[in-house]
Amino acid sequence: MAKVFISDLVLRDGHQSLIATRMRTEDMLPICARLDSVGFWSLEAWGGATFDACVRFLREDPWDRLKKLRKALPNTRIQMLLRGQNLLGYRNYSDDVVRAFVKKSADNGVDVFRIFDAMNDLRNLRVSIEAVKASGKIAEGAISYTTSPVHNIPYFVNLAKEFEAMGCDTLAIKDMAGLLTPTTTAELVKAIAAVVKMPIHMHSHATSGLSAMCLLRAVENGATILDTCNSSFGEGASHTSTESMVAALAGTEYDTGLSLPLLQEITAYFRETRKKYWQFESEFTGVDTRVLVNQVPGGMISNLSNQLKEQGALNRMDEVLAEIPRVREDLGFPPLVTPTSQIVGTQAVLNVLTGERYKSVTTEVKNYLQGRYGKAPGEVNAQVRSIAIGDAEVISCRPADFLEDEMDKLLGEIEGIAKSEEDLLTYAMFPELARTFLQERAAGTLKPEQLLPAGSNLSCGPFYAPNEF
Amino acid sequence: MAKVFISDLVLRDGHQSLIATRMRTEDMLPICARLDSVGFWSLEAWGGATFDACVRFLREDPWDRLKKLRKALPNTRIQMLLRGQNLLGYRNYSDDVVRAFVKKSADNGVDVFRIFDAMNDLRNLRVSIEAVKASGKIAEGAISYTTSPVHNIPYFVNLAKEFEAMGCDTLAIKDMAGLLTPTTTAELVKAIAAVVKMPIHMHSHATSGLSAMCLLRAVENGATILDTCNSSFGEGASHTSTESMVAALAGTEYDTGLSLPLLQEITAYFRETRKKYWQFESEFTGVDTRVLVNQVPGGMISNLSNQLKEQGALNRMDEVLAEIPRVREDLGFPPLVTPTSQIVGTQAVLNVLTGERYKSVTTEVKNYLQGRYGKAPGEVNAQVRSIAIGDAEVISCRPADFLEDEMDKLLGEIEGIAKSEEDLLTYAMFPELARTFLQERAAGTLKPEQLLPAGSNLSCGPFYAPNEF
Ligand SMILES: [Co+2]
Ligand SMILES: [Co+2]
Repeated sequence: MAKVFISDLVLRDGHQSLIATRMRTEDMLPICARLDSVGFWSLEAWGGATFDACVRFLREDPWDRLKKLRKALPNTRIQMLLRGQNLLGYRNYSDDVVRAFVKKSADNGVDVFRIFDAMNDLRNLRVSIEAVKASGKIAEGAISYTTSPVHNIPYFVNLAKEFEAMGCDTLAIKDMAGLLTPTTTAELVKAIAAVVKMPIHMHSHATSGLSAMCLLRAVENGATILDTCNSSFGEGASHTSTESMVAALAGTEYDTGLSLPLLQEITAYFRETRKKYWQFESEFTGVDTRVLVNQVPGGMISNLSNQLKEQGALNRMDEVLAEIPRVREDLGFPPLVTPTSQIVGTQAVLNVLTGERYKSVTTEVKNYLQGRYGKAPGEVNAQVRSIAIGDAEVISCRPADFLEDEMDKLLGEIEGIAKSEEDLLTYAMFPELARTFLQERAAGTLKPEQLLPAGSNLSCGPFYAPNEF
Repeated sequence: MAKVFISDLVLRDGHQSLIATRMRTEDMLPICARLDSVGFWSLEAWGGATFDACVRFLREDPWDRLKKLRKALPNTRIQMLLRGQNLLGYRNYSDDVVRAFVKKSADNGVDVFRIFDAMNDLRNLRVSIEAVKASGKIAEGAISYTTSPVHNIPYFVNLAKEFEAMGCDTLAIKDMAGLLTPTTTAELVKAIAAVVKMPIHMHSHATSGLSAMCLLRAVENGATILDTCNSSFGEGASHTSTESMVAALAGTEYDTGLSLPLLQEITAYFRETRKKYWQFESEFTGVDTRVLVNQVPGGMISNLSNQLKEQGALNRMDEVLAEIPRVREDLGFPPLVTPTSQIVGTQAVLNVLTGERYKSVTTEVKNYLQGRYGKAPGEVNAQVRSIAIGDAEVISCRPADFLEDEMDKLLGEIEGIAKSEEDLLTYAMFPELARTFLQERAAGTLKPEQLLPAGSNLSCGPFYAPNEF
């Protein structure tokens, strides 16, 4: 019996991190029988940015993808990434939408729900966790790992205990930026394993080249499920390669029991598949340790760089990189992950380009300072808050407490166009996009964005890197 | 005081493994001041395939490169890789050539000589080790690591002891194919550290994605010098990224003490530099674990694939891959590294394409079976030997014992064209090439091979991967 289990991320985080979430369902299905026979603990295959990319770029119905994957993977758990009360969208949803979304995801095939909140504010996760439990599926609470003066091991241990108290079945340590070092991983996993019974599931991006060592330390200290990605979509902004980890643990007390030749067949398939998406490749896919020095995740840097380029201000990049930690401190040290990475990044750009800090303040920062994203991990800067929102009310309750049920309202908006509750939920996530999508689907005119043939001169615009999950 | 030291490979093995050894001296010099200030144990910067590439492709004088690097790196040891009695060429040289080559290398700036033999036949290393000791430089004996029924830990421990007895100052464990796993590394290093006093210097290619974990296990078990490569030329067929290892060990008892921000400045420089050489990039630079299953190093596979393509027989690749371990067994399990990788690979291709094993036998295999490369690690197949060489004599002494001093003869051949002993030694390595090179140098007509401008359609032929060092 294997002592360590593997979740393979090739169908979600792998292509999200390396080719801007562009892999199409048609390229997943032919290899599913092989994937299904490996014996993974789960295949992460839905959620994160895939839902958005399906509707926006691939013009695929994300629910249809889920149904097809479910059918093609009868023996393997399908795992999804869910942003708590934000679900797969970019705002807080009312509780009835959260419940409906989780239920439909479960009905259509999701077995494991990994649920996180950018602030680690557990109030933003309660309803979705309850909904997963109600559907009889696996609720995985995810700690958004970061470093800051207010983030330390007792802080994360406490989060883990609270996740367990909320009924989570497993606990993910989600190191989206590749900040964990082997030593910190060892201390963190050991401390958490000492106080919770839930299996610990490690997720550490390979960005800074430390993830394989972190996974090794994690299993030595009590983690039993590892997130890795088939090497065809592994390393760099993605994850440690599945085959490498299987080989590293083979013959040890942590042997995964998975077949390397079988995994290599899958690798051969996806290596060819990846070529089709060459236009979405980053220029550099290797190791980048800058996050360990400047604390700014790689994906955020490429997005900022595109943002500055558009404004002809690429030469201000160093100032923006220096401003980001200051804005983050002003906001009470939120982990930098969707949506806080965008909130902090955009404000930092404004602070630099306007020549005066907080001269112009984004709506998102105002909402943040009003508590509308939840409780900040540390203290927010009272002076900055005063500049930004004056005397406006700061809420201390759960942000979604202000939201009334909205399923009926949404249905009213999209009636006749949405053909199912799934369609309605797609509309709830991305109203404008989804309306067009559903109309074109009905008219049979959906067209995926074009893929450039191999050897074309690349002339598409910059795309924003959604690699912060 | 740092407990672990780093040798950075960016000036030799890094570009040799990733861009076919094409980095030019002009691209090394501007960053040398920075490299020199890091505090590396050594910078590997000469030998291996660089000498060949300088003369053949870059039309640079390799000795001139060494002199310039020596001047630009006043505070850092320069390390080279030397193939024992083969020096940097592809045959055995007489002892006077070996002594002259080592002396001139030392005179011109090499501080550390890493010396290996493809067969691990220490008789092929004795003269060069003696010559290094005579020059007062550091002699590093290198074990060519491999796996086979005759290669086990006691075998390697014994090699290590013999290296120490021969007067080596340090011991390299050279895992050129990325075959080491973390567990084996731990056992091997521990066993060797228990019996030798020499510092242990780990060299493990990142090909299969295991090297970072191996380096971690190595330091835990007594290795004190690690080979890593700046991330700009790290990972894949190259090595674990220097920055990652520095970050992984920072704050532990194995702290390297090196500055991450300084290393990142170097990274920024080389990332830009690498773009200039895009035409030499492999299609896929990620993790490849196939060597762990089929025992055939990645570089060998790409060379074979080019060889088969040229003969319109790419469809026989699987048969060749299956034949390689059989040929290797027939030859008594030599490690697969230059030149044995070529010897085994080419014979395997012949065995497949002719439709009958050993129907045609290469001269190299005949010489091998006569003992002219040294003693095989295991027993050679007597039947195959009989087919290949009939009753021809099999030597049991050191192959170079048959060679008379040849410096005078070489000088006679190249007199007037060679302007120095260095030139003579260049001629000794690659006679044809060097003659033209020296003549063109005299005429001022040396032209490096052309680099394609960015965005060109790639239309150059396949190049053979020299990534087996
Ligand atoms: Co992720
Ligand atoms: Co090497």
